[in-house]
Amino acid sequence: MAPVSLDTINPKVLKCEYAVRGEIVTLAQAVQEELKSKPGSRPFDEILYCNIGNPQSLGQQPITFFREVLALCDHPSILDKSETRGLFSSDAIERARQILDQIPGRATGAYSHSQGIKGLRDAIAAGIEARDGFPADPNDIFLTDGASPAVHMMMQLLIRSEKDGILCPIPQYPLYSASIALHGGTLVPYYLDEATGWGLEVSELKKQWADAKSKGITPRALVVINPGNPTGQVLAENNQKEIVDFCKKEGLVLLADEVYQENVYVPEKKFHSFKKVARSMGYGEKDISVVSFQSVSKGYYGECGKRGGYMEVTGFGPEIREQIYKLASVNLCSNISGQILASLVMSPPKDGDESYESYSAEKDGILSSLKRRAKTLEDAFNKLEGVTCNKAEGAMYLFPCIRLPEKAIKAAEAAKTTPDNFYCRGLLNATGIVFVPGSGFGQVLGTWHFRCTILPQEDKIPAVVSRLTEFHKSFMEEFRE
Amino acid sequence: MAPVSLDTINPKVLKCEYAVRGEIVTLAQAVQEELKSKPGSRPFDEILYCNIGNPQSLGQQPITFFREVLALCDHPSILDKSETRGLFSSDAIERARQILDQIPGRATGAYSHSQGIKGLRDAIAAGIEARDGFPADPNDIFLTDGASPAVHMMMQLLIRSEKDGILCPIPQYPLYSASIALHGGTLVPYYLDEATGWGLEVSELKKQWADAKSKGITPRALVVINPGNPTGQVLAENNQKEIVDFCKKEGLVLLADEVYQENVYVPEKKFHSFKKVARSMGYGEKDISVVSFQSVSKGYYGECGKRGGYMEVTGFGPEIREQIYKLASVNLCSNISGQILASLVMSPPKDGDESYESYSAEKDGILSSLKRRAKTLEDAFNKLEGVTCNKAEGAMYLFPCIRLPEKAIKAAEAAKTTPDNFYCRGLLNATGIVFVPGSGFGQVLGTWHFRCTILPQEDKIPAVVSRLTEFHKSFMEEFRE
Repeated sequence: MAPVSLDTINPKVLKCEYAVRGEIVTLAQAVQEELKSKPGSRPFDEILYCNIGNPQSLGQQPITFFREVLALCDHPSILDKSETRGLFSSDAIERARQILDQIPGRATGAYSHSQGIKGLRDAIAAGIEARDGFPADPNDIFLTDGASPAVHMMMQLLIRSEKDGILCPIPQYPLYSASIALHGGTLVPYYLDEATGWGLEVSELKKQWADAKSKGITPRALVVINPGNPTGQVLAENNQKEIVDFCKKEGLVLLADEVYQENVYVPEKKFHSFKKVARSMGYGEKDISVVSFQSVSKGYYGECGKRGGYMEVTGFGPEIREQIYKLASVNLCSNISGQILASLVMSPPKDGDESYESYSAEKDGILSSLKRRAKTLEDAFNKLEGVTCNKAEGAMYLFPCIRLPEKAIKAAEAAKTTPDNFYCRGLLNATGIVFVPGSGFGQVLGTWHFRCTILPQEDKIPAVVSRLTEFHKSFMEEFRE
Repeated sequence: MAPVSLDTINPKVLKCEYAVRGEIVTLAQAVQEELKSKPGSRPFDEILYCNIGNPQSLGQQPITFFREVLALCDHPSILDKSETRGLFSSDAIERARQILDQIPGRATGAYSHSQGIKGLRDAIAAGIEARDGFPADPNDIFLTDGASPAVHMMMQLLIRSEKDGILCPIPQYPLYSASIALHGGTLVPYYLDEATGWGLEVSELKKQWADAKSKGITPRALVVINPGNPTGQVLAENNQKEIVDFCKKEGLVLLADEVYQENVYVPEKKFHSFKKVARSMGYGEKDISVVSFQSVSKGYYGECGKRGGYMEVTGFGPEIREQIYKLASVNLCSNISGQILASLVMSPPKDGDESYESYSAEKDGILSSLKRRAKTLEDAFNKLEGVTCNKAEGAMYLFPCIRLPEKAIKAAEAAKTTPDNFYCRGLLNATGIVFVPGSGFGQVLGTWHFRCTILPQEDKIPAVVSRLTEFHKSFMEEFRE
């Protein structure tokens, strides 16, 4: 008798899904193994992972200054050696010293305060203040191993049962649906309007909120992802104000996923944090609960493997803060390198620092290249038969809509899968390109999409476009009515 | 209307407790602030944190080789520079190169496979094989941010409701009670026998198992912490065999907390992993489910801040393995520096490597000092009136029993706290020494204990002993009948 079977595990685990690393990716890994053992067995020689926002896996280089500081903090005993001056920039050496001075006993190998090292939280709070023009309190910062554990913590805090609802955009980043499922709550969907560039209409929020209430669900929080994942839109400030008012009026915690705050590619849009918007409306601590998530994995830094991030928690009473602290303390603390990196991305080199020029060049190079790649891919999608793609205003993704022929939909049915999955499987098998089917994010019933990152390096983009275009043509030929 | 209050949060969060960073530690932080703002306001000038297994916070130095490799992996562009040879040992440079070669694209800033980088898992599996003399499969390894998230994952997998029970030692490390509470299960306590050096009797397991069953609880798993936390005992191999047989017979998953595997201080005891014991009995994959937790935070490495660790998952079918993989994938991956460090602690320098001698000297220095400190503290406790302390065979803690006078118990009652908490508060206020009250770990009703780490540096141990002894004397004087 096996002690554990699918019938006896936690059904919430069974229910949870995470498409970004789901079926198509497992298939891609198998094809990659096949390519290794049988080179030439496919019409392509490498897998192009466009499934996940993982810039450095596709060749993006880390920011040199950040890595210098991390290396010095990892091995502080070289700080005073003469060779070190030849290997590291002087401001990186200086910054590493400053950081080490803020760590009790300079012990980067010790558990820190459960919210993270105080001096690093000071730097982050100062960075938020500089960004927003409103005060930030280091005691509101909880450093976490990337943004995901922070999201889980808030879901764990808020969800009591399936009667508690979390309003989530559809399409959404599936961390949210996964976390809500794992914590046994109900995802209350609100639909982004594809026709208006993935617009977030407050009328839709109100409608879905009322609908949930009528079903006996208590909406507890509203998730907003801005810039959008997988949808790439950037919210207008006025729209954000309406959202803030809605949350305030209905007593919803505003869970603001702001991990793409540096990824805005169009001049007419600008990132505004939800806390700043709320403060600019005159709402303070007592008026609204806002949690802002930030991560070192995105932006121009793209340091996914470092697992750094934080949440800024505002508008909760001290007794609730204590409960959040307790949850953080059960896991002791987040990793110190990630903590250091989170402080660095919120306080990068300044004009006049030795590294400033190279830092700026690296940063601008990455962001302007991402912008070009986004545009090239967007244009390419819009040239495909039956495909329409909204503007990539921000984030790292495109989420084009594809109108599939009836014959393809039937073929998918026969293959016991969804049409978008069927398309993505075909694409992978024919080209090695990995997209995530729209089903993994949610989409209006009867519409089909896929998510594609804008992360392949620029010299690979032409190949992506031509392979995709060729596949798409032959797919449409095959299944045309 | 505040959207969130203690009445409306998840009651499982409210229920969860984690004493290792609980009330006494919060009080200690307040006293530390007081010392900073008003030096001389107390009869001591520093807080001695003996509450938590956090070696480097108390001055333990990291192993140089490990930090060299981490720094080089953080900033690989210095690998080829001539100055680097002057700063780093040649085998650290070589090892960093090997590790980077195992990372796709040498990208230490990319998300890895959700179980961790394959090459690092290979090294860990080889280390387990070398330790145990039985095969280990890299596909059984799940790298995690320290051992805590691994424990949470298993609890999340196994616990469906409060009808599911997890057998835990009492006293236990409160991560277990916290995780069980957060996941809504029932902790089924089995008591370690203080009279026999915290012996783990299978008769007690059977009794508590039957008792749980009679209450309608389904026991799902047995937690064993070996070497013991907070109790410091090391299990005898024969005892482990009985435990394995019990789990096999009753269909329990054996959750083996083996994070102190390097911390054994007595010649008559040796660490044996539960998987090795099970294999030595002829039990394979199909016979018993064993999960072994390991961490970079303990041992002689003590790298708590790096948040590295792994679990080795054996004896589960592929369909369950897939569910565990899914849980891992929702958080994408553990931090890469922690992954690298986990591979290093399982494959340290070997005889003949340039760093071997210094590595061995550092390792032996730390372990032999820990052994001396354990003995000194154990002897000191046993000299205190009304205090008895078992031998510290392993781990990093002592858990002495203290018989408190009736008058002290009444005074605690008047102060609305438990007697052990009352004692620890008094100790902190009088001496700056931070112990954790036994209530945080569980203890036989009517007995009182505290947990003390053996981690203060050796030059501080005499002060700990004399301050403690003095406080204890005056405490007993004050409350003697």
